[in-house]
Amino acid sequence: MAIAQITQKLLTAKKEKGITFQELETILGRDEVWIASVFYRQATADESEAKKIIETLGLPSELAQELTIPPLKGSLEPVIPTDPLIYRFYEIMQVYGMPLKDVIQEKFGDGIMSAIDFTLDVEKIEDVKGDRVQVIMCGKFLPYKKW
Amino acid sequence: MAIAQITQKLLTAKKEKGITFQELETILGRDEVWIASVFYRQATADESEAKKIIETLGLPSELAQELTIPPLKGSLEPVIPTDPLIYRFYEIMQVYGMPLKDVIQEKFGDGIMSAIDFTLDVEKIEDVKGDRVQVIMCGKFLPYKKW
Amino acid sequence: MAIAQITQKLLTAKKEKGITFQELETILGRDEVWIASVFYRQATADESEAKKIIETLGLPSELAQELTIPPLKGSLEPVIPTDPLIYRFYEIMQVYGMPLKDVIQEKFGDGIMSAIDFTLDVEKIEDVKGDRVQVIMCGKFLPYKKW
Amino acid sequence: MAIAQITQKLLTAKKEKGITFQELETILGRDEVWIASVFYRQATADESEAKKIIETLGLPSELAQELTIPPLKGSLEPVIPTDPLIYRFYEIMQVYGMPLKDVIQEKFGDGIMSAIDFTLDVEKIEDVKGDRVQVIMCGKFLPYKKW
Amino acid sequence: MAIAQITQKLLTAKKEKGITFQELETILGRDEVWIASVFYRQATADESEAKKIIETLGLPSELAQELTIPPLKGSLEPVIPTDPLIYRFYEIMQVYGMPLKDVIQEKFGDGIMSAIDFTLDVEKIEDVKGDRVQVIMCGKFLPYKKW
Amino acid sequence: MAIAQITQKLLTAKKEKGITFQELETILGRDEVWIASVFYRQATADESEAKKIIETLGLPSELAQELTIPPLKGSLEPVIPTDPLIYRFYEIMQVYGMPLKDVIQEKFGDGIMSAIDFTLDVEKIEDVKGDRVQVIMCGKFLPYKKW
Amino acid sequence: MAIAQITQKLLTAKKEKGITFQELETILGRDEVWIASVFYRQATADESEAKKIIETLGLPSELAQELTIPPLKGSLEPVIPTDPLIYRFYEIMQVYGMPLKDVIQEKFGDGIMSAIDFTLDVEKIEDVKGDRVQVIMCGKFLPYKKW
Amino acid sequence: MAIAQITQKLLTAKKEKGITFQELETILGRDEVWIASVFYRQATADESEAKKIIETLGLPSELAQELTIPPLKGSLEPVIPTDPLIYRFYEIMQVYGMPLKDVIQEKFGDGIMSAIDFTLDVEKIEDVKGDRVQVIMCGKFLPYKKW
Amino acid sequence: MAIAQITQKLLTAKKEKGITFQELETILGRDEVWIASVFYRQATADESEAKKIIETLGLPSELAQELTIPPLKGSLEPVIPTDPLIYRFYEIMQVYGMPLKDVIQEKFGDGIMSAIDFTLDVEKIEDVKGDRVQVIMCGKFLPYKKW
Amino acid sequence: MAIAQITQKLLTAKKEKGITFQELETILGRDEVWIASVFYRQATADESEAKKIIETLGLPSELAQELTIPPLKGSLEPVIPTDPLIYRFYEIMQVYGMPLKDVIQEKFGDGIMSAIDFTLDVEKIEDVKGDRVQVIMCGKFLPYKKW
Repeated sequence: MAIAQITQKLLTAKKEKGITFQELETILGRDEVWIASVFYRQATADESEAKKIIETLGLPSELAQELTIPPLKGSLEPVIPTDPLIYRFYEIMQVYGMPLKDVIQEKFGDGIMSAIDFTLDVEKIEDVKGDRVQVIMCGKFLPYKKW
Repeated sequence: MAIAQITQKLLTAKKEKGITFQELETILGRDEVWIASVFYRQATADESEAKKIIETLGLPSELAQELTIPPLKGSLEPVIPTDPLIYRFYEIMQVYGMPLKDVIQEKFGDGIMSAIDFTLDVEKIEDVKGDRVQVIMCGKFLPYKKW
Repeated sequence: MAIAQITQKLLTAKKEKGITFQELETILGRDEVWIASVFYRQATADESEAKKIIETLGLPSELAQELTIPPLKGSLEPVIPTDPLIYRFYEIMQVYGMPLKDVIQEKFGDGIMSAIDFTLDVEKIEDVKGDRVQVIMCGKFLPYKKW
Repeated sequence: MAIAQITQKLLTAKKEKGITFQELETILGRDEVWIASVFYRQATADESEAKKIIETLGLPSELAQELTIPPLKGSLEPVIPTDPLIYRFYEIMQVYGMPLKDVIQEKFGDGIMSAIDFTLDVEKIEDVKGDRVQVIMCGKFLPYKKW
Repeated sequence: MAIAQITQKLLTAKKEKGITFQELETILGRDEVWIASVFYRQATADESEAKKIIETLGLPSELAQELTIPPLKGSLEPVIPTDPLIYRFYEIMQVYGMPLKDVIQEKFGDGIMSAIDFTLDVEKIEDVKGDRVQVIMCGKFLPYKKW
Repeated sequence: MAIAQITQKLLTAKKEKGITFQELETILGRDEVWIASVFYRQATADESEAKKIIETLGLPSELAQELTIPPLKGSLEPVIPTDPLIYRFYEIMQVYGMPLKDVIQEKFGDGIMSAIDFTLDVEKIEDVKGDRVQVIMCGKFLPYKKW
Repeated sequence: MAIAQITQKLLTAKKEKGITFQELETILGRDEVWIASVFYRQATADESEAKKIIETLGLPSELAQELTIPPLKGSLEPVIPTDPLIYRFYEIMQVYGMPLKDVIQEKFGDGIMSAIDFTLDVEKIEDVKGDRVQVIMCGKFLPYKKW
Repeated sequence: MAIAQITQKLLTAKKEKGITFQELETILGRDEVWIASVFYRQATADESEAKKIIETLGLPSELAQELTIPPLKGSLEPVIPTDPLIYRFYEIMQVYGMPLKDVIQEKFGDGIMSAIDFTLDVEKIEDVKGDRVQVIMCGKFLPYKKW
Repeated sequence: MAIAQITQKLLTAKKEKGITFQELETILGRDEVWIASVFYRQATADESEAKKIIETLGLPSELAQELTIPPLKGSLEPVIPTDPLIYRFYEIMQVYGMPLKDVIQEKFGDGIMSAIDFTLDVEKIEDVKGDRVQVIMCGKFLPYKKW
Repeated sequence: MAIAQITQKLLTAKKEKGITFQELETILGRDEVWIASVFYRQATADESEAKKIIETLGLPSELAQELTIPPLKGSLEPVIPTDPLIYRFYEIMQVYGMPLKDVIQEKFGDGIMSAIDFTLDVEKIEDVKGDRVQVIMCGKFLPYKKW
């Protein structure tokens, strides 16, 4: 995956400042995953959000504008990603895709969970047998329109 | 995706009996998504679970055994699935894969969310602007071992 | 593309009865493209629609039920289809994909045209220099949610 | 997708000048989608059109010539694009490709909708339940020649 | 490549009758390549052509109708064919694709050679140093429309 | 397709000099398609041909040598090209590959049309209903050797 | 790789009769590799060769004809074969392809080794350190034609 | 195929010096194909061989070391190469892979021809009907071990 | 992956008899992984081994012969397997492939670990924090031959 | 495979210093394969490990930090690697994947060998018939969770 130049600059500045995404969550009033998505040019900030990110990281203010342009999204390489953390989400889709489809359709009818009108949260669940990662996806159900 | 013969039989019997996955959840004491995974031969039932499923659906008891053999998992075709409901999970991985990776690693260090020591739930969130699908993934964090 | 058995039956019966999709449009009160999508198991009919289709084609009534189950959608083979008529839509996406993206985003902001809350019409535009095919796609604009 | 250098220059200048594709439509007397296609080197301008675009954007006049050379077209990467807005057009082809083929052939006989003698328009349809994107494709029907 | 059942029947009957495509050319008044395309369900015959083919081969008349339905075209497997005779055409496209593009565009402007309003002939050119295969493709030039 | 640096230089010089491939055909005594293939490093010129090309275009004479080295041929990207003009040749192979194979083998026996001992011409056929592109491929028939 | 039915019959009969390809070499006066290619429908026998093969194997004489039809050649699956013996030839091409190209072109000029006017032999070279497999490919050099 | 920088330097120097691989064969006492493989970083030279190559070509001596590091091998792009000379070896594998497998296994039992304990020679066989390229592969037979 | 018919029969009989691979190890005097490879037609048994397997499983003796024919090996589908257990071995190759290459070459020089003169063992290592799977691969080092 | 800049620096320094991975094993108290994985940015060092590596190699201390950031893992190109040493691990997975799965599941039940809680060792086993490479993989068994 070719990481955009601006992403590199944001990540480096964040590292140097020692700021976490969680701290940015407090500063911006937006979820840390969404903010990380802005970093990777997968989500679009408005001008005030972009400015706040750039200022917090101590970067030149002219960089803010780029974060406000709707990006070309989705760009993992190869198309089936090899990074183990990311691949597991592909595996979940492979193994649980059909069962998920049946359960969602049984509950909602023919349609999909939107990936646009959609939020994504990550929680750390502490557990003595080993902490757990909780990923919560929440998207509007979109029923197929008939015409 | 070539659907296994036993899956066809289970789905047909379930439809004819008019039983939902949610009702099976009550009968088996297992989550409906996990049960749907057994139907699609992506999860392994033990003998008593298999028997209960087969009996509830009124199918011949000799079918139970097949559900207890660890299956060959993951079998969507083509490798990037075209069904819109399932594809959205691929899209989420494409768009939010890198941000997720960064946020998880910031919270947990270098490692992954297990897709084996893992649970998956689907909830219907009622909303006047349109109901929402909530998918909750919860996997043990596995830190990379050094040696 | 492996065409489902029920699709074969519907197309054969339609041919033998000499009924067009346009005539089915009048009988069902649904657009001919949507009806063709039901034939190809890409759209889900409700029970009364399914019954009307089956009856009009003079097929055994027990076939109706299959048309009411949310189908596994999208199944062209290979993934870049070789049929010239269908390929042209792939070509349009290849050639005009980026311009379309920019124009839509200029008009609407960051988001997509829904392919679910969506209609599709085909019109014949008579023209002395050669008739024209008009394909009208109309989908709800879905703005990216921030969270 | 590697975006051509001239495309980058045109888009940056357009942004700096604060000009929309719709305003360029008025200035050039050509549709905004076609103009965006010239920007992305998917369509060829004639000399006067190229000059007008370059002048309007305040770019050096020697750039005009490049826009008049027939370009190498279609260059999304990967071959099944991951950007959600563009992917939806792939999905429409996957889901509705066969139904479209049947309806077009029922109306016109064996042949295709040209993607060359072809126009493409985008309209915003205001709607209280959410605005809609309308994409109108209009191509000459080309019947298969026999010989 | 899965060869359609009707293709198998036509080829077998042709072999048993000992009829060549060239003789069919005389009988039908259509080119042998086009007739071979009908055999492979890549071109559509009208009713009288279909009838003549079926009769000449001594096959049951009810087979004629299938030849009149616009077929799903293009079905070589894998997508880059391995048969040496067919592959050479892929190789010609790989090696001479860009030169052809430049020469055609220099002569005609921006546009394409139609593969629909198109004829294809094969000639045997006798030559003492070894006979030569001549393949003549002739398609209408389609200039890109501006709008 | 990454176009070789020398190709870029040749094309730019040709454009600036305002010379067509057809004029080069007269100067070199070689077909314009072959000359364009030399430009794209798909064919090898001998020293005198290389020199004439370089001189005609007014380029530095040391560039001539590169045109005399047998090139690495065939380099369209992606493997199924997306440029509409070039794609049509892929489509012709997909749709007419099997019929061509049968007709060639009926005329010549088991073997192939050489793509090496091979010529390729492009003609403009004027026609009131729209000019036509004629592409003539002529390759030696190579029968399979038995041993 | 789907093995043709006739191939299965030939291999089974050969096994039952306990005949080796080497013995068939003596009976037919053709090389064993070529004969094995006929078995796999990759080479075409003439009528007398086909008859001799069928008779030697004690198979019904009507099977002979199929061996005389030019076959659709090349059909390994997947396109990069996984069988270790066959894969090694792919690896040789990957590792030694460019060196081979340079050496052949240095010796012969721009052109190729024909895979049609071509023979292929396998020899067993006895060696105390372990026997060796010798594969001898011998194809006519085909120089690129200029035109 | 991205050719390594050192390969470029070696090939350029070889060209300028006017030395052939055959002459290097005499100088090094190694086969020309093996030497070409060192050039393309597919084989590893020892220090004295590397030094001799570098000296013969008049290149700076510090380049020698790179030729002694075991390289990352095999790097044709795309995975099915499009260069006609190299492709023919892929075609030979496709067409003759299964027959070769059967003949080798009949002669040797279950196992493979090594591509590591392996030599590769190219000979020019003069022939009045056209010179022939002979490629001799010779690898140790490796029988499958049982355990 | 299409599982061969004989594999199905062997697995079913093994299940019905309640025999484990470990027990077969004792009976045959061969490692359980090798025996499982014979079941999946990836390894070749000799006649006495084949007979013992067939007898132990109580299957008809004529099945034994098939197990003695060198099989077409390697047949996972898709080429990057989706089954989580098998995929992990692909992931290990992706993540640790280059480090392994460097360490092996540092210890042994330029060459490979044979996958033919090769054994593969699986051990269960009991551990209070969770049992561990140990996979031991042991292959002859094959140094690259120079020639 | 694009090798990261830092990897290049580490490998060059290691070569110049004449240090082996085995020596680094002694210095760091970590296995040589794990250290090589840090070099290739597939494993994450902690600060003290990173510092020790950088110091041992005599590199500027500011490079240490990069080795402590969780890397994007797995990046062989193409997805089925062509380097013979690495490919053999792919081949082992293809040939022995299913037998391994069955044996592991027979011993442990439904689950996988972790590739995260995982160690990897390489041993040289001296043998008069040729030294052997031993690769020992050892991962925690992860049973599928039910929920």
